[in-house]
Amino acid sequence: MLAEIRGLNEECGVFGIWGHEKAAELTYYGLHALQHRGQEGAGVVTTNGHELKLHKGQGLVNDVFKRVDFSKLSGHAAIGHVRYATQGDRTIDNVQPLLFRSQAGSMALAHNGNIMNAYKLRGELEDAGSILQTSSDTEVLAHLIKRNGTLDSLEAIKDALRQLVGAYAFILLKENKMHVALDPRGLRPLSIGRLGDAYVVASETCAFDIIGATYEREVLPGELLTFTDMGVESTRFDQQEKRALCAMEYVYFSRPDSDLNHVNVHASRKRMGIELAKESPVEADVVTGVPDSSISAAIGYAEQSGIPYEIGLIKNRYTGRTFIQPSQELRELGVKMKLSPVRGIVEGKRVIMIDDSIVRGTTSKRIVRMLKDAGAKEVHVRIASPAITNPCYYGIDMSTKQELIAANYSIEEMCQLIGADSVAYLSSEGLEKAIVTEDTINQGVCMACMTGTYPVTESGQLEISYTKC
Amino acid sequence: MLAEIRGLNEECGVFGIWGHEKAAELTYYGLHALQHRGQEGAGVVTTNGHELKLHKGQGLVNDVFKRVDFSKLSGHAAIGHVRYATQGDRTIDNVQPLLFRSQAGSMALAHNGNIMNAYKLRGELEDAGSILQTSSDTEVLAHLIKRNGTLDSLEAIKDALRQLVGAYAFILLKENKMHVALDPRGLRPLSIGRLGDAYVVASETCAFDIIGATYEREVLPGELLTFTDMGVESTRFDQQEKRALCAMEYVYFSRPDSDLNHVNVHASRKRMGIELAKESPVEADVVTGVPDSSISAAIGYAEQSGIPYEIGLIKNRYTGRTFIQPSQELRELGVKMKLSPVRGIVEGKRVIMIDDSIVRGTTSKRIVRMLKDAGAKEVHVRIASPAITNPCYYGIDMSTKQELIAANYSIEEMCQLIGADSVAYLSSEGLEKAIVTEDTINQGVCMACMTGTYPVTESGQLEISYTKC
Amino acid sequence: MLAEIRGLNEECGVFGIWGHEKAAELTYYGLHALQHRGQEGAGVVTTNGHELKLHKGQGLVNDVFKRVDFSKLSGHAAIGHVRYATQGDRTIDNVQPLLFRSQAGSMALAHNGNIMNAYKLRGELEDAGSILQTSSDTEVLAHLIKRNGTLDSLEAIKDALRQLVGAYAFILLKENKMHVALDPRGLRPLSIGRLGDAYVVASETCAFDIIGATYEREVLPGELLTFTDMGVESTRFDQQEKRALCAMEYVYFSRPDSDLNHVNVHASRKRMGIELAKESPVEADVVTGVPDSSISAAIGYAEQSGIPYEIGLIKNRYTGRTFIQPSQELRELGVKMKLSPVRGIVEGKRVIMIDDSIVRGTTSKRIVRMLKDAGAKEVHVRIASPAITNPCYYGIDMSTKQELIAANYSIEEMCQLIGADSVAYLSSEGLEKAIVTEDTINQGVCMACMTGTYPVTESGQLEISYTKC
Amino acid sequence: MLAEIRGLNEECGVFGIWGHEKAAELTYYGLHALQHRGQEGAGVVTTNGHELKLHKGQGLVNDVFKRVDFSKLSGHAAIGHVRYATQGDRTIDNVQPLLFRSQAGSMALAHNGNIMNAYKLRGELEDAGSILQTSSDTEVLAHLIKRNGTLDSLEAIKDALRQLVGAYAFILLKENKMHVALDPRGLRPLSIGRLGDAYVVASETCAFDIIGATYEREVLPGELLTFTDMGVESTRFDQQEKRALCAMEYVYFSRPDSDLNHVNVHASRKRMGIELAKESPVEADVVTGVPDSSISAAIGYAEQSGIPYEIGLIKNRYTGRTFIQPSQELRELGVKMKLSPVRGIVEGKRVIMIDDSIVRGTTSKRIVRMLKDAGAKEVHVRIASPAITNPCYYGIDMSTKQELIAANYSIEEMCQLIGADSVAYLSSEGLEKAIVTEDTINQGVCMACMTGTYPVTESGQLEISYTKC
Repeated sequence: MLAEIRGLNEECGVFGIWGHEKAAELTYYGLHALQHRGQEGAGVVTTNGHELKLHKGQGLVNDVFKRVDFSKLSGHAAIGHVRYATQGDRTIDNVQPLLFRSQAGSMALAHNGNIMNAYKLRGELEDAGSILQTSSDTEVLAHLIKRNGTLDSLEAIKDALRQLVGAYAFILLKENKMHVALDPRGLRPLSIGRLGDAYVVASETCAFDIIGATYEREVLPGELLTFTDMGVESTRFDQQEKRALCAMEYVYFSRPDSDLNHVNVHASRKRMGIELAKESPVEADVVTGVPDSSISAAIGYAEQSGIPYEIGLIKNRYTGRTFIQPSQELRELGVKMKLSPVRGIVEGKRVIMIDDSIVRGTTSKRIVRMLKDAGAKEVHVRIASPAITNPCYYGIDMSTKQELIAANYSIEEMCQLIGADSVAYLSSEGLEKAIVTEDTINQGVCMACMTGTYPVTESGQLEISYTKC
Repeated sequence: MLAEIRGLNEECGVFGIWGHEKAAELTYYGLHALQHRGQEGAGVVTTNGHELKLHKGQGLVNDVFKRVDFSKLSGHAAIGHVRYATQGDRTIDNVQPLLFRSQAGSMALAHNGNIMNAYKLRGELEDAGSILQTSSDTEVLAHLIKRNGTLDSLEAIKDALRQLVGAYAFILLKENKMHVALDPRGLRPLSIGRLGDAYVVASETCAFDIIGATYEREVLPGELLTFTDMGVESTRFDQQEKRALCAMEYVYFSRPDSDLNHVNVHASRKRMGIELAKESPVEADVVTGVPDSSISAAIGYAEQSGIPYEIGLIKNRYTGRTFIQPSQELRELGVKMKLSPVRGIVEGKRVIMIDDSIVRGTTSKRIVRMLKDAGAKEVHVRIASPAITNPCYYGIDMSTKQELIAANYSIEEMCQLIGADSVAYLSSEGLEKAIVTEDTINQGVCMACMTGTYPVTESGQLEISYTKC
Repeated sequence: MLAEIRGLNEECGVFGIWGHEKAAELTYYGLHALQHRGQEGAGVVTTNGHELKLHKGQGLVNDVFKRVDFSKLSGHAAIGHVRYATQGDRTIDNVQPLLFRSQAGSMALAHNGNIMNAYKLRGELEDAGSILQTSSDTEVLAHLIKRNGTLDSLEAIKDALRQLVGAYAFILLKENKMHVALDPRGLRPLSIGRLGDAYVVASETCAFDIIGATYEREVLPGELLTFTDMGVESTRFDQQEKRALCAMEYVYFSRPDSDLNHVNVHASRKRMGIELAKESPVEADVVTGVPDSSISAAIGYAEQSGIPYEIGLIKNRYTGRTFIQPSQELRELGVKMKLSPVRGIVEGKRVIMIDDSIVRGTTSKRIVRMLKDAGAKEVHVRIASPAITNPCYYGIDMSTKQELIAANYSIEEMCQLIGADSVAYLSSEGLEKAIVTEDTINQGVCMACMTGTYPVTESGQLEISYTKC
Repeated sequence: MLAEIRGLNEECGVFGIWGHEKAAELTYYGLHALQHRGQEGAGVVTTNGHELKLHKGQGLVNDVFKRVDFSKLSGHAAIGHVRYATQGDRTIDNVQPLLFRSQAGSMALAHNGNIMNAYKLRGELEDAGSILQTSSDTEVLAHLIKRNGTLDSLEAIKDALRQLVGAYAFILLKENKMHVALDPRGLRPLSIGRLGDAYVVASETCAFDIIGATYEREVLPGELLTFTDMGVESTRFDQQEKRALCAMEYVYFSRPDSDLNHVNVHASRKRMGIELAKESPVEADVVTGVPDSSISAAIGYAEQSGIPYEIGLIKNRYTGRTFIQPSQELRELGVKMKLSPVRGIVEGKRVIMIDDSIVRGTTSKRIVRMLKDAGAKEVHVRIASPAITNPCYYGIDMSTKQELIAANYSIEEMCQLIGADSVAYLSSEGLEKAIVTEDTINQGVCMACMTGTYPVTESGQLEISYTKC
């Protein structure tokens, strides 16, 4: 599927560390591991107990930090952010963490998620005389806290959080403390780890592995944590009965080496492939996956079906930096930059092509044709997740139902549209089985975009979901 | 193994096209596909029949061409080059193609390989009054041709080529013709394709696939091809009885989707894994490969052994651009940038770790420790090629025998050195079986670095192999 | 004197234009003419009646705008700013114009001057729940206006301005109007011009000349102008009896081709030289000036004294971009980058060296030594303004009395300190005579830094003058 | 006049130093002082006795060297070059010094001038089998020397120099010696200085002043100097009876603080103004000069005539870096970037406008109109040099007679064409009187472009003067 629509390929990542003298550098490495969650901008804010220091910029983590003197970002705590942005938001102002200074003290915020009622809250703040500087949801939270009273009040933060509707994982840094909060349904991933005496918080556990930290536990839905020199304290500002962690995190967003809610992502994807092979077998010569996110499922499908797994499609490792895209004329000549079929593998073969999801179907159609042009006798498309038939309001930019191919066509029509010999999806039961294992804590995933059942509801959702991250 | 020594990870790539109005753009895309063969510099020279135009620069293909106006590189033919360079050679002057202008006409050269007697030839040229501008072997060929007579003489080129000793694939462009030559043993890969009426030449067939060209045949050992508006002519300037294509191209250098001498690289690597599983089985829970080049062999090993293949190691996709390497202190804290173990997969497991080769052993040692730190119960190292025990003089920078771990230690010593529970190599027979199939033309591979049997010999080889590409 | 202390060499420049379809480009050229007033950053905000668009950046005007597509800054009105910044303020956030967006409408501000009570006002705003994003005085005005009511109220702006204490020239742009205001004493320069039907406002008239606009009149002290599609309206928010335009604008800051309050700067400087020659004549062979700002006075001194004017000191035109300053060792060897003596002119001569002012005396000492090393027999220093003996609180960074050489030494001591054969200053009467002519409107200049008589007084001035521009 | 045609504003500058441990840094500062002679590129080559090291790049000296680690350019001798280039030559390859390496030793060359028979010599070299890499004359000399025998032979160099026809100042560096040569007529400036025990050579003496070196003597026409650790030796390879130093160096090219052949440039320009006032007086209110190069002459004219000198035109100091030139539409609106009239000075006045020369007349016309638009009652143009009526073949790009206004129009016609009230030139006798004083050594200047009398003649000059520097 390959990230057909903006937002499906990436969303923001947050990182925080408390109690380590190399806080800024470790945050840099942590953001590096979270780079796949956002490539538009990155930033770090540190505190040395007296002063917050910020460095942020547009582009990849390495571009932003390549000439940074880390000795100027000294301090024992830091928070960081990698940003995915829609076109209109691509200004440095929106790159996080956002830093708010005042004579009474400073506050920095890093945020992953989507505040559904941000537009309304923003209007209320402006009517009361506030000036907001960015178009991000994140700034709304800062103003809500400031309005609610002095910066040091835990209640001010809890009151502010209770005004928010949506999915969010927040990290907030002040001179002498760090707060961490997760939305009441736990829609976004957020884990806690330890590195010696230090505490680490990150969107994914792969950020713990890169710095040698050990995973401790999940931040709980509706939990607000406070880290100070005295240690850590936990409180709840809200709580739903069952966590609803976004299923797309398993299917597509997260890195295969991360554990989400105690479940390894690669392993869950392999199980999706296994379930898919059980549900929708087909006779073929080779199984291949659309790189990178569908490889694990393809291996699972191959293992279950006994059909050999082969590298039938290859991704060009350097195209992430491609500035020059082929013109229409050159594309018609056959020029392809991102993905190539491996003729030596697929020629004359019946190919099972595993993809993680289909959104608009245009990419699938292109890949099927690519495989057939390279000599594949048959191409059987197997999607390792249920069809996406509904928009998402929690931080993923899947605009309207009209764009979603699965919402508008039958399997047979789709098969014809994308030129495949057969198409099958994993069932939502199969997906749940692949994700929710005995290891999962506080069971439950959000599959709203596949099932239409939304864990959080509010009137007027469509018009308010204009900002993200 | 992960490219432990300079030169093992990359070598140059060449590309040429004759007879297409989009010659420069297609060369750009071709170089893009060959990017893995050289990341230090790239360049293109075009001809419009009257004039050669050059654009080159240091860095990746995209960096070099990102602000290029291709309308200024118009012409119906072009040659291109991606460069791998040793530290000392990193100047723009050495980036290819080299362009030589004179009042009688111009000449551009792109070259992959190593001229073993370059130092001697250079001295002879200088004694006769020539001034050479670069430290590259490539310039020597230009001067030899110029000295041999007028630029239009085919004999001048053949005489010049016959003075060279070594491994090389040359493409030479003049205002009104393009010459292509391969060394007498065919040590370097070089293929011919078609794109409509146009001819394409490239180091690897993946450069054909990206532009939609079809593979035609190999350039033959000792063959000199001439492309003009009249068509293509072939002649031989020398010829050995058997081709000796570099085995490391299959093991490590080439892209898995390329066919080398009619054999697909991924498929040959998978066969290496299959042979390795037959030769050196071991009881274990998971098979994993060191990404990226060892994945195919790992899949083959898993398929043959029936032990499931898992993603036990993950490569950070963004580290290619890492400017800030962890300090020793941070590395000791556990910070790792390029490769991470997947704890959720290897914890408590007996792991078979497939790597493509071992040179100095330091990387293997690090990966084994990484896996054990992540909880692996046992780590069995299986190398999908024979031990490298001898230096290479044909264009790969493997300095001296002292650096090669396999040349100095027994299997048992190595096992202890790298901390593995067992170590085994693929036999040279196994490697040959994996590469040389019924499809291979003019059979024969060069395995000199593994066996010590060199296809080309000359006295004083060690002191003269100072330049490359 | 050559700008010995930060702030003496530069201060910000503002520009605005209403009613011209090329508003952004004309603002770019206007800022170009004002470049000498600030080299740290530049920016433009335009309005097309519906939307404000911003482009700003750090560095020179040309650096900031070199890749700008002006078609994306379309609109019939624009304001611009060039920024001088003290070290700590060098972030993009502080570069002006500042742009404040809200659901009710947007507002952009450009400001030259210093709000003396900014710290106090900022504290009051923050206590009331506002979040300020920059460390600039300018943002304070925006919040004061926002707090005072709706954006469209002229009274809100007037109330806000009345809360400010200090020296300032403001330009404020909204979607459908432009406001311009000058402080009640008229300490900063601000003129109005016409370009066809369009109105232009700028810190100096040289910005009118570059775009072919004609000078109309001064903005009056305490005046608030409003430009809309209906025309221009003027009102007064405050008014002192006599204008007090900064004398240093004539002595040093402004460009010689500008007219300030109807007096040409070059002509006033030449008169300073003439008065100086009358007050402090000396026998000598040549008169020379320290380039660039002292040339006019030197020519006046030469004309009055009958001693020939010569180029005895030359300024290197390219050092503005000097990244590599000579090491101490090289300076001792005699390496000099910015200023060189002309040996062929001064050798064996008695030299009168005209400078515009002396602050710490270190530069004067260096120039005198330079001239003597080049063979000058005598060096008589003549300063074309009175001694600076008091700090300035109105926007020029002359920290404390201790740093001001003239405040701490007698003429004789200074003469010895800087190694001159004689030293003399222009009297304050002489300076006033050179500036205040029959052309001057609403007579009066601020010479507080020379006389200690401050036109605006407030308790606690020293501690509050921490921000500028 | 303001450099109306390419090449009149700039030509290359050379610098060399022998015997100083800070050779590279001092060369950097020397090039800085010579920056006005070439702004397209700069470079330095050093020797430490064993090895030549090169750093060069396109752009200003500061841009080229801003990130250079001078410790990597260690050595006791160095040569440097600043380059002026015509459009077609703007490649890094042509930036000097050119460095030629060979197994027998290396050689670097820096050159100011024009070899008139370069095209012919280049053809002869190529026919004999040489490959030339650049389009510069300088490389021809290197090949001539190499062809003439071993690098260590002084005769090889003298023979090579004798084959050259034209104007040139060469500096040549090898591992263990430095050679310096001036053409037989001494057309280009080249001086020798001392810095302690070290020797310094430069195009202008301002390069001595910046590093604290003292001027020693001129390099003589046809002289070849050799600097080694044993000291300096001088020989002559050719010699004309009388030196013919380019008069335009005094009129326009050189810095006012330089002494050329013992005559200070500012002083000579002032004398040009004095002579001009004697020859062509006119009643007026103010004298003004076109900055920068005409200021000295204007001061001389004012002093002689008794009419006050004023700053009636001002140059924008930042336009050197202007990327965005006003469109035709904006120019017609009156936008001007480089030069502005000072209305406050010229309004209502009769203005004498001094310029150093007129080439095509277009700039003069623009300035006259500018002054009249600013209110000048009369504008009398006085040119401080004779009319340029003939092309130059010695290194200055004044293409053909057709472009030279003075060659095609009478004074009356010109007056009308440029809109002045009167026009007068300095006579060639006046110019000679201003330059050739009792201090001048080996008297004689080349005024060929004004008089048509060429000091060096050769058939076919026009077609061969295609390269420069």
